[in-house]
Amino acid sequence: MNLLNKVGRYSFLSEPFHCDFSQRLFIARLGNILLNAADFHSNERGYGMTILHPLHKTWVLSRLAIELEEMPTAYQKFYVETWVEGVMKYFTNRNFAVVDEGGQVFGYGRSVWAMIDTDTRQPIDIQAVNDGIVSQYVEVEKSCSIDKPSRVKMTDAAQRVRTISTCYSDVDMNGHINSVKYIEHVMNLWDMNFHRSHQLKRIDVAYVAEAYGGDELAFYVEQTGSEEYCVRITKYAKAAPQEVEVCRCKLLFVQARR
Amino acid sequence: MNLLNKVGRYSFLSEPFHCDFSQRLFIARLGNILLNAADFHSNERGYGMTILHPLHKTWVLSRLAIELEEMPTAYQKFYVETWVEGVMKYFTNRNFAVVDEGGQVFGYGRSVWAMIDTDTRQPIDIQAVNDGIVSQYVEVEKSCSIDKPSRVKMTDAAQRVRTISTCYSDVDMNGHINSVKYIEHVMNLWDMNFHRSHQLKRIDVAYVAEAYGGDELAFYVEQTGSEEYCVRITKYAKAAPQEVEVCRCKLLFVQARR
Repeated sequence: MNLLNKVGRYSFLSEPFHCDFSQRLFIARLGNILLNAADFHSNERGYGMTILHPLHKTWVLSRLAIELEEMPTAYQKFYVETWVEGVMKYFTNRNFAVVDEGGQVFGYGRSVWAMIDTDTRQPIDIQAVNDGIVSQYVEVEKSCSIDKPSRVKMTDAAQRVRTISTCYSDVDMNGHINSVKYIEHVMNLWDMNFHRSHQLKRIDVAYVAEAYGGDELAFYVEQTGSEEYCVRITKYAKAAPQEVEVCRCKLLFVQARR
Repeated sequence: MNLLNKVGRYSFLSEPFHCDFSQRLFIARLGNILLNAADFHSNERGYGMTILHPLHKTWVLSRLAIELEEMPTAYQKFYVETWVEGVMKYFTNRNFAVVDEGGQVFGYGRSVWAMIDTDTRQPIDIQAVNDGIVSQYVEVEKSCSIDKPSRVKMTDAAQRVRTISTCYSDVDMNGHINSVKYIEHVMNLWDMNFHRSHQLKRIDVAYVAEAYGGDELAFYVEQTGSEEYCVRITKYAKAAPQEVEVCRCKLLFVQARR
């Protein structure tokens, strides 16, 4: 069994203009980097977006969880290791480890992906695609020592705190609101003073529906622990004026270390 | 004369999550990449931010112009070449070429930088720093075939079209609004339909003053040609409620090629 072939390893730089005022990488940029690593890894192994698109299929991110011990700081080089931990009929579990050159761990990520038919937008039996090629690369022994993506439970007590109109820069290559832009907008719900005294420890994101450029997004926040918050994002599409949930997040902060 | 030593060359990937709905790299991301290249190049030659910070000095971007024939598309690898074309007492001119592996040119950039004392915020005689080390790397023969950064002339006819509150994700490592975030916000002034039918050909940005996280930014637009627009950005700081100009841009669009 060739472990290296199952686990992809990609190097990234913590670019200075992707770091926040505390010189740590923005969590949205780290999310971005994990998705890049997933993309590189799956394309190299014959089941990535570039292979699926001509077949009128694509991967859809359903859940993403990131938990951090430390965040890479400006100019740090780091590596993202990624592997598929399990393949079910309609979902795959993909894990991530964010490590430095010496193998020290910054944190881990977990994600859940569905495959859909891009014509019908319906889920596809993943194991029926390309002779179940994904299953050949399942790696169950490599450790990813964080909890699975959690359900985000919210009540009607959640308060609407912001509404934004999505713009050109929010829209990805598929014409949808970029998955990591939700994280950027959610982090912006807290002001600079909060960010000066807090660091993100863990974020869970559940993607529910797609939004499109020009849609209005509403953000509802509920505090669910002393440093834990849940956020529900809904959209008002121009074509269909009813409010539809697009995304839910749970964020756990810790006191900032300086 | 060692040309290679004066010109830095850095490779970048047009990452899929940094591409717009037309699969072309976002101009704000390209701006970001040019500033990264400038940072790498100057640090490697002994006059970059990492050398200047302990000396209580820093570079401040005063003008940036980018003009494009084509924009890199998703997954394309490209190179940014950068060099200092001239050093005056208070300003340096730094140029950029964006090229592919075969040397074909995507476009060029020009920038003007001042050096300031971070304690007094006053400009410094650049040639007096580290025995005028920057001057040793001036490269005047390499071609940068676009016009110099232009003055952005605007009249009182400019219309205020948007006001935004700056957030956590707008703020850079120095605590200021990130230079390229202005470009992102400016591009967002046009709706998706406009972007579907237009591509940016050239942008000129003049940075006038710093803004800080939490400041409100107001955007004023004036159409100055059939496909040319000027944008003035002002801030309302919480501490000082008068309106202050922070940035001006001129944008030239062309009809989109599909």
